[in-house]
Amino acid sequence: MASMEARKDDDELTADELRELWAILSEDERVENFLGLPPEDAEDLFTGLAPLEQGELLLAIPVGQRRIWMRTLAPDDAADLLQEIEGDTKEELIKLLDEPTRREVRALMAYAEDDAGGLMSPRFARVRPDMQVDEAIRYLQKQARERLEAIYYAYVLDSEQRLLGVCSFRELFAAAPARLVRDVMQTEPVTVREEMDQEAVALMMKRHGFLALPVVDADDHMKGIVTLDDIVDVVDEEATEDVQKFGGMEALENPYMQTSFGAMIRKRAGWLAILFVGEMFTATAMARYEHEIAKAVVLAVFVPLIISSGGNSGSQASTLIIRAMALGEVKLRDWWRIVQRELAAGLTLGLVLAVVGAIRVSVWEAVFHTYGAPYRLIALTVATSLVGVVTVGTLCGSMLPLMLKRVGLDPASASAPFVATLVDVSGLLIYFTAAKFILRGTLL
Amino acid sequence: MASMEARKDDDELTADELRELWAILSEDERVENFLGLPPEDAEDLFTGLAPLEQGELLLAIPVGQRRIWMRTLAPDDAADLLQEIEGDTKEELIKLLDEPTRREVRALMAYAEDDAGGLMSPRFARVRPDMQVDEAIRYLQKQARERLEAIYYAYVLDSEQRLLGVCSFRELFAAAPARLVRDVMQTEPVTVREEMDQEAVALMMKRHGFLALPVVDADDHMKGIVTLDDIVDVVDEEATEDVQKFGGMEALENPYMQTSFGAMIRKRAGWLAILFVGEMFTATAMARYEHEIAKAVVLAVFVPLIISSGGNSGSQASTLIIRAMALGEVKLRDWWRIVQRELAAGLTLGLVLAVVGAIRVSVWEAVFHTYGAPYRLIALTVATSLVGVVTVGTLCGSMLPLMLKRVGLDPASASAPFVATLVDVSGLLIYFTAAKFILRGTLL
Repeated sequence: MASMEARKDDDELTADELRELWAILSEDERVENFLGLPPEDAEDLFTGLAPLEQGELLLAIPVGQRRIWMRTLAPDDAADLLQEIEGDTKEELIKLLDEPTRREVRALMAYAEDDAGGLMSPRFARVRPDMQVDEAIRYLQKQARERLEAIYYAYVLDSEQRLLGVCSFRELFAAAPARLVRDVMQTEPVTVREEMDQEAVALMMKRHGFLALPVVDADDHMKGIVTLDDIVDVVDEEATEDVQKFGGMEALENPYMQTSFGAMIRKRAGWLAILFVGEMFTATAMARYEHEIAKAVVLAVFVPLIISSGGNSGSQASTLIIRAMALGEVKLRDWWRIVQRELAAGLTLGLVLAVVGAIRVSVWEAVFHTYGAPYRLIALTVATSLVGVVTVGTLCGSMLPLMLKRVGLDPASASAPFVATLVDVSGLLIYFTAAKFILRGTLL
Repeated sequence: MASMEARKDDDELTADELRELWAILSEDERVENFLGLPPEDAEDLFTGLAPLEQGELLLAIPVGQRRIWMRTLAPDDAADLLQEIEGDTKEELIKLLDEPTRREVRALMAYAEDDAGGLMSPRFARVRPDMQVDEAIRYLQKQARERLEAIYYAYVLDSEQRLLGVCSFRELFAAAPARLVRDVMQTEPVTVREEMDQEAVALMMKRHGFLALPVVDADDHMKGIVTLDDIVDVVDEEATEDVQKFGGMEALENPYMQTSFGAMIRKRAGWLAILFVGEMFTATAMARYEHEIAKAVVLAVFVPLIISSGGNSGSQASTLIIRAMALGEVKLRDWWRIVQRELAAGLTLGLVLAVVGAIRVSVWEAVFHTYGAPYRLIALTVATSLVGVVTVGTLCGSMLPLMLKRVGLDPASASAPFVATLVDVSGLLIYFTAAKFILRGTLL
C-alpha cells in the first residue's frame, strides 16, 4: 500500500515497480504506466509478462499500437498469447504479424499446449554438413542478423531437413576453420518428438544438461527447438500443479491473484465436497461404536488425536512418494522396496508416538486424575492404536500414489482424498477394536 | 525387476539403462558397468549424476582413474562434489585438479551452498569496451578454445574487472565488425550479488528471462556467472523442499531412495511428534465436553467429519498461499486482499459443505432412522458448525503462512502443523458450542 501512495505523489512508476504491482493495478493504471515507460523498459516488461497478462494488455492498449507489440514476440510466445484469447480478436491479432511469422505461429498453435511441439520455437540455427567451419560461422552470423532468437547450438540438417547432428556453438568456434562441419558435429543427437509431454521433455533436459533440445517428427525432420527457459516455466508449473493437487484442490490455471473468485471456488469446492463425502464414512464407522462410546465416553476424547496421527503419517508418506515420482527418482517397479521401507518406517514412527502418547496419559492421570482407575488400560489402548494407525497410514500413503499411477490416474490429484478417507476410517476401526479387546470387563 | 534379469542375460547395461537403475544398483555393479561404458557415454553419465552420486562413484573407482574424472568437471560442479565429501579424502581429490582450477574451486567452496556465489561458475566470456566487434569475436574464439564452458553472453569489463555492460552473443555477431564493443553493449546490466540467496536468484532469472546472470561483489567486480541450468536444479530443489515441508516433515537432503532409513526417520519423527503433541489439545478440548457427549452420544459420531472438513479447507488455503509466495505472486503487503478473498471463499465453501451435510443427515434419517426424533436439530448443528469450521480453517490456512513469513520463519515448514492443531481445536469448540445452543432443551 505504501508504494501505491508513493505512486500518487510523483505519478510515475519505474519498470520494476510496475512489474511488482502489475497484479493489483487496474487495467487503466496498467496501460497508462506501460505506455509511459521508455521503449526499452516497456519491451523488457512486456516480454516478461505471462501470456495471459500480455493478451489482456494488448487488448487494452490503442488498436494502432498493437502491431509493434505483437511483432516484438517470438513465434512461440505469440502462439502462447493467442491461445489465451477467445473468438474474433484472435484472428485480428494474428493478422498483425508478418507473413512468415504468421505461418510459423499457426503451425505452433496446432500443437497441444503441453506437448514439446507447443513449447518449441521454430527458429533455430541450421548449417549443412558439407560446409567448412568458417563458412558455417559466417552463415550463422547471417542467420543471427535475420530472425534468430538466440544461438544455443547449430543443427546440422540434410537437404530434406532431417537432423544429422549437432554442434555446440563453442565447438564450432574452437574448431579449425577448414574442417568440415560433419567432422566436428556430434552424431546421434538427443532429440524429443513433437508430441512428447512437456514434463518428459523437462526430465530429459535436466538429465542431459543441455540448453536446448531439437524437436523432430517421426521421420527425423527437424521442427524446432525447446529451450531451457521454457523448461524452467514447465518445472514451476508442474510443481505448482502437484502442490495444489496435493493440497486437495484442482490446479489453478493462473496465478492466485489473477484467478477470478468464481473459478477459484469451482477448483476448490469440487475436491472439498468429494473429501467431505468420503469422510462421511467416518460417521458411519463412529455410529457402529455408539454403544461403546455410551459406556465409556472417555474413548471419544481420543478420537481426533488418533485419526489425525494416521492422517499426518499418511500425508508424509504420500508427499514423499509423489514428489519422488515427479522427479523420476522412484518408479513403479520399485514398489516392493517401498513397501518394505515404509512398513518399517510406519512401525518405528508409530512406536515413537505411542511412547509419547502413553507418557501423556500417565502424566495427566498423575496430575489431574482425569481418566479414573483404568487409566493404564486406556493408555495401552491409545498406544496400541497409534502403532496400528500410523503403520496403516504410512503404508496407505505410500502405496496409493503408486496404485493410482499404475491404473493411469494422476497420483498427485487423487491421493490426498483417498488416503485421508481410508486412513481415518481404518483408524477408527483399529482404535475401537483395540478398545474392545483391552477394555473388555473393565470399562466395556 | 525385469530389466535386472535382462541384465544378467547379456551382462551389459547401456548408458541409459545404467542411469535408470543407478539408485538401486550396488556400488560394485555401478563401478563395473560405469567402467564398461564407451568413454563418451561414461562422461555423459558422470556429468549428469548428482554431486553426491559423483562423489560416491569417484571414491569407488580405482585411485588411478580418479584424476581424469575430477578434471572432467567444471569448477562449480567440482566444488559441489567436494562439498559432499568428508575429511581427508576431500583434500586428496582437490589435489587431482590442475593448479588454476584448484584455485577456482577453493574460492567457490568458500561460499555458502545456497548463495549466488555457491552456484556460480568463474569461467565466463569477457571482452574490453574499446575492442572492435571483429576483434572481440576473435578474442572470444580464443577463450572458447581455452577454458570456457559455454558462451552465453560476453561481459564487458574495465581494467579492474568491474562490469560495464553485457553483449548477447547474437548482438555481437550481428553487429558491424568495425563498431566498438562499448557502443554495442547494453549498459546497466542486471546483476546479482555474491551473497544473494539462490531462491532470489532464481526468481530474478525467471523474471528477466536471461540464460545467465553476472555475479558481482559490493564494488561491482565481476566474480562469475550463474547459468540457467543451475537454476533449474534450484527450482526443483526448492519445490521439493516446500512440498516435503508442507507434507509435515523436514526436507530430505537427498533423493528418497538414497536417504538412509535412520536419516529418514529423524526427518519424519520430529514433526510427527510435534504435530502429535499439538493434537493432544484436541483431547483436552474433547474432555471439556464429556458431559455433553455422555448425554448425546450421537454428537461424537460427527466429530471426525467436522474436524477433517476444517483441516481440508485449511490445507487448501495454506497450499495456495505458500506456493503463491514461493513464486513471488503474493507479497506480505497483499495480506488484506487475501483476508477478504479467503473470508468470502471460506463462507462459500462452508455453505456448500453444509448443504451436502444437511442432505446427508436427512437422507440417512429418512432411510435408517439413525438419529431419532431431533434429527433436524442435529442436521442444523452439523451444518452451522461446517460453515464456521470451514471459514476458520480457510482463514487460518491463508493467514498463518503470511504471519510466519512476517516473523522470519519459513512458511512452508511451520504452517501445516500450526494450521492442523489450530483448526482441529477451534473446530471442536465451534461444534460443541453450536450443539449447546441448538440442542439445549432437547438432547442436551
